Amino acid sequence: MKQPVTVLGLGSMGSALAGALLDHGHPVTVWNRTAEKAAPLTRRGARLAATPAEAIAASPLVVACVLDYRVLRAVVEPESLRGKDFVNLTSGSPEQAAEAAEWFGAGYLDGAIMTTPEGVGSAEVMVLYSGPRPVFDAHAPALAALGDPVYLGEDPGRASLYDAALLGLMWSAMAGWLHGTALVGAEKTTATEFTPVAIRWLGTVNRFLTRYAEQVDEGRYPGDDATVDVQIAAIGHLIHAAGARGVDNALPELLRGMMERASAAGHGADSFASLVEVFAGRVAAR
Amino acid sequence: MKQPVTVLGLGSMGSALAGALLDHGHPVTVWNRTAEKAAPLTRRGARLAATPAEAIAASPLVVACVLDYRVLRAVVEPESLRGKDFVNLTSGSPEQAAEAAEWFGAGYLDGAIMTTPEGVGSAEVMVLYSGPRPVFDAHAPALAALGDPVYLGEDPGRASLYDAALLGLMWSAMAGWLHGTALVGAEKTTATEFTPVAIRWLGTVNRFLTRYAEQVDEGRYPGDDATVDVQIAAIGHLIHAAGARGVDNALPELLRGMMERASAAGHGADSFASLVEVFAGRVAAR
Repeated sequence: MKQPVTVLGLGSMGSALAGALLDHGHPVTVWNRTAEKAAPLTRRGARLAATPAEAIAASPLVVACVLDYRVLRAVVEPESLRGKDFVNLTSGSPEQAAEAAEWFGAGYLDGAIMTTPEGVGSAEVMVLYSGPRPVFDAHAPALAALGDPVYLGEDPGRASLYDAALLGLMWSAMAGWLHGTALVGAEKTTATEFTPVAIRWLGTVNRFLTRYAEQVDEGRYPGDDATVDVQIAAIGHLIHAAGARGVDNALPELLRGMMERASAAGHGADSFASLVEVFAGRVAAR
Repeated sequence: MKQPVTVLGLGSMGSALAGALLDHGHPVTVWNRTAEKAAPLTRRGARLAATPAEAIAASPLVVACVLDYRVLRAVVEPESLRGKDFVNLTSGSPEQAAEAAEWFGAGYLDGAIMTTPEGVGSAEVMVLYSGPRPVFDAHAPALAALGDPVYLGEDPGRASLYDAALLGLMWSAMAGWLHGTALVGAEKTTATEFTPVAIRWLGTVNRFLTRYAEQVDEGRYPGDDATVDVQIAAIGHLIHAAGARGVDNALPELLRGMMERASAAGHGADSFASLVEVFAGRVAAR
């Protein structure tokens, strides 16, 4: 028999988690503040518990996904977790994860689901975990039902820190894509024409990131492929072309300003990776 | 015998282009303002012409990659191109490409190389072309030596427009990655640890872009996966976490401001794709 799992919280994400566990044949016990949310899951074989403590008692592994850490503490009594492992997929900060690790004890694993609810269960999707390695290893097979489990280390705050950093990357990438979409759209190119080329191009960008990651770690940014100063000129051409077409240029103007700060700090002949000095606050603001 | 090709301009990119053509067995004639640059290529079998006209006369296909369009016009006489096809890979604006198409005549194809010189010749790399389809079709086999040829349409300015849009996407994505790298770096995670996870995450983001492209083209942005208002709250958490670690937050603060403008314009319950209304200048600046 597959490992029984309890899921606390049946918002759209919690329901998706419980559904994915059912899909993989796990006996699932659920609890939610409003019991009606459980109906689609109990129809598929989940057992509805009347209280969080009853739900927790039903399984050796408890997964929580509630509104926030305040709700989590109100719902889950640390005493009820004795002998259980507890995977918390509630969104929060690294500090909240660290406090929760103290509060809930040795079986506490913090996690972050790197997709929207409809992506849950796909092996292509990452679910990030941090906390005690033995807890992760013991439950990785069950957690694989939710998405590919990626272990980031013992520091309980790391999954949340990565979550924030990855969401920031997403917003930036999506904003850059929308700026480009608006630019080509001004010349009657559709977003569905532009986007496959943009996605393919991000594959090339990924190779730059891999190269620049080594430069960041070394603190040396040889600009032998493309220098910051060359890119300051090139982003000027983008700003000109987009401005002439009525596109909002606040984003590329901000990026040019950061490049100019890097250049003024001596990185003009270095690669774009040298902007990490600006992001890390090691270059004075203008 | 493979098609003879002439390459005008032997900066680092032009030299890479000529080298890739030699790698694929094309007879290559080169010209450069300073002839010394040709030495590594003539050692590999390229023929050095004394003048641009002599170089152009040597091959039915002429590829140019010079400093800018001003230099291009100074170097290439339209009369010398009679009966030739001319592929211009010099960086410039859509307007410059359109003017060059007028100036150089029917055999003119404009292009943009979507990589740095050391990437030239890889089949994974895109080289974008726009202009007459028959010219592209006739030379696609030779152009494949430079990278995967991607044809974007008859409008000669389109390759340059895509080039600008894709570079903007690159700078945004790289800046978001550097912000995230700085954030996790503040907690002693190296860039080389973070980056493979970031690259994998961009694969998930690509699926969002594909979905959002359809929303952009339809002008409707259903926020059933994640709404702008939810993301305004989430980017606030990122800004808090990064600010507490001394990371420069100008980028996520700008993105939050754009989300707030979209929300104020009625897109709070829509998806992030609704920000295209802000980028396209259809939402008033604050």
